[in-house]
Amino acid sequence: MSHPHAYGALDYKCANVIRTLTLDAVQAANSGHPGMPMGMADVAYVLYARFMRFDPQQPHWFNRDRLIISAGHGSMLPYSILHLTGYDLSLDELKRFRQWGSKTPGHPENHITPGIEVTTGPLGQGCGNSVGMALAEAWLAARYNREGYPLIDHYTYVICSDGDLQEGISHEAASLAGHLGLGKLIWLYDDNNISIDGPTSLSYSDDVPKRFEAYGWHVQTVDGHDMPAIESAIRAAQTVTDKPSLICCKTIIGRGMPNRQGTSKAHSDAPGPDEVRAAKIALGADPDQFFEIPPDALAVWRNIGARAAQARVAWDDLMARFEQVDPTRAAELAQCIQGKLPPGWESALPVFSTADKPVATRAASGVVINAIIDKIPALLGGSADLTPSNNTMPKDAESLARGAYGGRYIRFGVREHGMGAAMNGMALHGGVIPYGGTFLVFSDYMRPSIRLAALSGAHVIYVFTHDSIGVGEDGPTHQPVEHLAALRAIPGLTVIRPADANETALAWKAALEHDGPVALILTRQALPILPPNEGALRGAYVVRTVADPAVILLASGSEVSLALDAAKALADKGIAARVVSMPSWELFDRQSDDYKQSVLPFDAPKVVIEAAVQQGWHRYAGPVARFVTNERFGASAPYREVFKHYGFTTERIVAEVETLLREAS
Amino acid sequence: MSHPHAYGALDYKCANVIRTLTLDAVQAANSGHPGMPMGMADVAYVLYARFMRFDPQQPHWFNRDRLIISAGHGSMLPYSILHLTGYDLSLDELKRFRQWGSKTPGHPENHITPGIEVTTGPLGQGCGNSVGMALAEAWLAARYNREGYPLIDHYTYVICSDGDLQEGISHEAASLAGHLGLGKLIWLYDDNNISIDGPTSLSYSDDVPKRFEAYGWHVQTVDGHDMPAIESAIRAAQTVTDKPSLICCKTIIGRGMPNRQGTSKAHSDAPGPDEVRAAKIALGADPDQFFEIPPDALAVWRNIGARAAQARVAWDDLMARFEQVDPTRAAELAQCIQGKLPPGWESALPVFSTADKPVATRAASGVVINAIIDKIPALLGGSADLTPSNNTMPKDAESLARGAYGGRYIRFGVREHGMGAAMNGMALHGGVIPYGGTFLVFSDYMRPSIRLAALSGAHVIYVFTHDSIGVGEDGPTHQPVEHLAALRAIPGLTVIRPADANETALAWKAALEHDGPVALILTRQALPILPPNEGALRGAYVVRTVADPAVILLASGSEVSLALDAAKALADKGIAARVVSMPSWELFDRQSDDYKQSVLPFDAPKVVIEAAVQQGWHRYAGPVARFVTNERFGASAPYREVFKHYGFTTERIVAEVETLLREAS
Repeated sequence: MSHPHAYGALDYKCANVIRTLTLDAVQAANSGHPGMPMGMADVAYVLYARFMRFDPQQPHWFNRDRLIISAGHGSMLPYSILHLTGYDLSLDELKRFRQWGSKTPGHPENHITPGIEVTTGPLGQGCGNSVGMALAEAWLAARYNREGYPLIDHYTYVICSDGDLQEGISHEAASLAGHLGLGKLIWLYDDNNISIDGPTSLSYSDDVPKRFEAYGWHVQTVDGHDMPAIESAIRAAQTVTDKPSLICCKTIIGRGMPNRQGTSKAHSDAPGPDEVRAAKIALGADPDQFFEIPPDALAVWRNIGARAAQARVAWDDLMARFEQVDPTRAAELAQCIQGKLPPGWESALPVFSTADKPVATRAASGVVINAIIDKIPALLGGSADLTPSNNTMPKDAESLARGAYGGRYIRFGVREHGMGAAMNGMALHGGVIPYGGTFLVFSDYMRPSIRLAALSGAHVIYVFTHDSIGVGEDGPTHQPVEHLAALRAIPGLTVIRPADANETALAWKAALEHDGPVALILTRQALPILPPNEGALRGAYVVRTVADPAVILLASGSEVSLALDAAKALADKGIAARVVSMPSWELFDRQSDDYKQSVLPFDAPKVVIEAAVQQGWHRYAGPVARFVTNERFGASAPYREVFKHYGFTTERIVAEVETLLREAS
Repeated sequence: MSHPHAYGALDYKCANVIRTLTLDAVQAANSGHPGMPMGMADVAYVLYARFMRFDPQQPHWFNRDRLIISAGHGSMLPYSILHLTGYDLSLDELKRFRQWGSKTPGHPENHITPGIEVTTGPLGQGCGNSVGMALAEAWLAARYNREGYPLIDHYTYVICSDGDLQEGISHEAASLAGHLGLGKLIWLYDDNNISIDGPTSLSYSDDVPKRFEAYGWHVQTVDGHDMPAIESAIRAAQTVTDKPSLICCKTIIGRGMPNRQGTSKAHSDAPGPDEVRAAKIALGADPDQFFEIPPDALAVWRNIGARAAQARVAWDDLMARFEQVDPTRAAELAQCIQGKLPPGWESALPVFSTADKPVATRAASGVVINAIIDKIPALLGGSADLTPSNNTMPKDAESLARGAYGGRYIRFGVREHGMGAAMNGMALHGGVIPYGGTFLVFSDYMRPSIRLAALSGAHVIYVFTHDSIGVGEDGPTHQPVEHLAALRAIPGLTVIRPADANETALAWKAALEHDGPVALILTRQALPILPPNEGALRGAYVVRTVADPAVILLASGSEVSLALDAAKALADKGIAARVVSMPSWELFDRQSDDYKQSVLPFDAPKVVIEAAVQQGWHRYAGPVARFVTNERFGASAPYREVFKHYGFTTERIVAEVETLLREAS
């Protein structure tokens, strides 16, 4: 182990700039969280001064080291550093901390601020993201690196807090990372014994090092204000290549605020002008200056940025040489990095014959995955221990495992939340389009991560199977009822519930071509195969055309076939029923008004049929409508029984149509 | 330590009855999970034969030991035992496993089957519930037990699986239990190295004993098929009174199925008639008999039930004697056990004066809690480390802590999911009405537990503050947008978003008097105080009455005051606007059609105003409506700025009304 560098007054002065910028920004906004940035300033300084490779001018340089601020409330730490190292984040933006339209929102948002890797704030998410980032790095390295060409070779660092480690998602993330032995993942734990309620001893007495050793992590504890010790610890963490590393940085929260440091008062809230003044004096700064950056400290920070960028220059050269020796692989990698699909990939999508026997959409999804996996190099998925049920595993795929990181299938374990957060990390790392499977009912377990996928625009694909009371015997704990509504409520999430195998193939097409999160909602039970119809890509389309329809049966997923049966029964009674399949509200919302009106004339009488809560369907049903939906939890029984008892029958639909037409006439 | 009992062939035969009943039931249903019941049969037998205190004739006897089947897929284990020990669960019900209307649904449901304590299946929930049960036991014991009167004195046992322990909620639950030192909590971990995907080594390599030691637990490992060893371990766990105990029971999944045991094939799915036959032969049972219970084994089991019930008889006597020595406390405890509120409690509810300055509904909620906490002995709450923000802590309350279990406030830590599951456990334990606080946006973290509260009818009260983009500076990660819709979508959950301090007091009244979960949705920002109006208890009511209204402004929560301002602005333009406050869809849905029509005439033009997604409002808005709602994520800025930019202004409302009336005319 090499000795750490010598650290002098200027180094601590550089760290203190983070502290004074934080104080001024939080005080100017009269809100924010000074505790973490001031507590972790020394650690962050060492990390940047000695380790981080990045290019402030090219924040998306692919092989950069990633730093995730899981303790996102401490956003003034990255904002300060991004400004100091020369990213496109002006001092004016720091002065506009938490103001309308600024690049410095209350919590870090990757789509707003250059250099911010992921959107954090909800605790534990960044920890989960980091596992996905390290996993993506390991996978891409295994696939693309060659002797002499370490194209993908970077660290993933995390700054996390007591709150992060109390959250359950931290368990799932750390357990998975330890299992996989992700050696280039390093968490810097801001171990300060303080949370919002007061000392963590009020609620928390985990032996954190022991806990992480139990996960198979390499664990160290250092004084988080001792720069040589911090450097040595990070270096030691890097030398352990077969285990992720936790460095417990013993810090004083809000260090530098003479009256608040070390207390929960330092965690949130503006310190007030007096404490700002006292802190600046204690930190050796001019108490009459605001947002001051001493020139000598700025020079050090800017030099850090410039030196870090040399790695980017070297990497460009490496890539250029690799393009010479293996242009095919280089082009493939470049395509993955750019997030592009290979031209013509969609010709691999299967088309199912209506002559084939009924097939569950989850099974059709499995067929699709097998058909496209070799065509789309970036596609990498798994399941939260429901592989045989989710049909997510490509045939003959190897599992991605410790020391075998090139495997094409991820065993996420019974860790839905960890999976969701890791998928976000994989997508935002880039080079990978992740998909992940679980039962729709367990989308609740990963909901905070789904929300962040939507907020941060992460291109992830959820394979949610077992999508209704059609689950049958497993009963109400496993039968989603409200989940379609709950997912459709999330802004920016596209939800697609295909009606058959052919719509499933198109749903995958939409999911792959969309630039954001998509949830595929798939059945457990087999469904008849309908003629392929690209209308599914438009969110809703007519599957049964009749001249002069008296009623429109509007259905999604497994209820489309039921609606078609009901339409036939209605025809026998002389009632002409159009049937509209509506796999996706969000895709339909993007269509022209003309198209919408042509498929679903607003005033036309409609019966909506979906084995889920009614909530939200009124918007598409219009003013003359009845609903074959379900406002209560499911029940344990063979699924045909459950459907019958819950009124998902042709008889019920026919009766509702008759009532509707009677009332409307 | 006493030596364990001697175990002979009849004991193992008794355990094998669980196995053969499981085989027959799963095979008859052609679905289910034989692996856990067959793997844990020996452990369960010892637990019942030597330890469990319960009364099959009085399944709700208050001081019974609780057994929670967190690995709920193994439901044939409790169903078998409940039948065998003499609960009201006939053999016919076992034969109707997983059939429509049976008392033996796929996963255990407390409201369906006598003797089932909680509804489980979604993994990890039972672990979380158990912490709430043990906490309720400790709290009630601290409050009501007296020297010589151990009125509340029981164990809480859990059977949990690898899947339970992989879930993040198990971390939150175990960490909290270890912190609190809940000595009467004992988890029996079915440590069988198998999950659905295959061997757990695919995804899982935690050192579980070390992990739990890090939480401060007492940990043992035993052969789960060695009855004396199991007994010794449970006894040792009981002797450790200051730590929860984990017993890692090394078992063979599906033990008894010669060809499937020890493999993932044993986990789920019917084994098929051949394997059932082979298993029965291996287990010494008659392969031609189905649902057979040998008389000698039945006699043992029934005797276990009869002997266990003696504890109930003794407890009745103890309670009768306690009623003599302290009739007041005895009556109070009885009231808590019955889940009744003290007569006249509601007179303690505060009434706020319209002359007072504006107050945030979260602050009003804090006032209510302080006003009623001494009137309602069963009320016990806390927060997931947001106490100062949620206003959940009664003034001068002591924290419930290790060795100080009588404290009136729970520091749940940054563990929303663990809090949600613990609340369910507290409520279903009985004697306690739990409330718990976090930010509304973090309701996502505990959503699986909220769903189970609704499904199982647990009387819990969520205090969800910071309820909209009104959160302001913290930005979109902390601003709920879709959460109202997502919560309203859950069947059986009552959501109440009061408009001011007085509605907040009534919301608490509704929450306390309701027999099921209630979510209170409260503002961060201050709101003007409206005249008290009991109409809030009916879900919606007229807050501004005008003769012959041209339009109805329909709003909830913080937008009601905005609607009132807009109504005044409209009056200046000669437009008469009724304003309806609608704090709760669910309360309104329970009203008569006449009442509904009187408040919200279906065809009347309406503008709906809520700082959240529109989803679901159409149902109350009727056919002539416009919406001042918000379909995108929020933004970081002072909240008045955010409201302005998102169109929550009187000007926007006035404009929408004018457009609506123009279009409708």
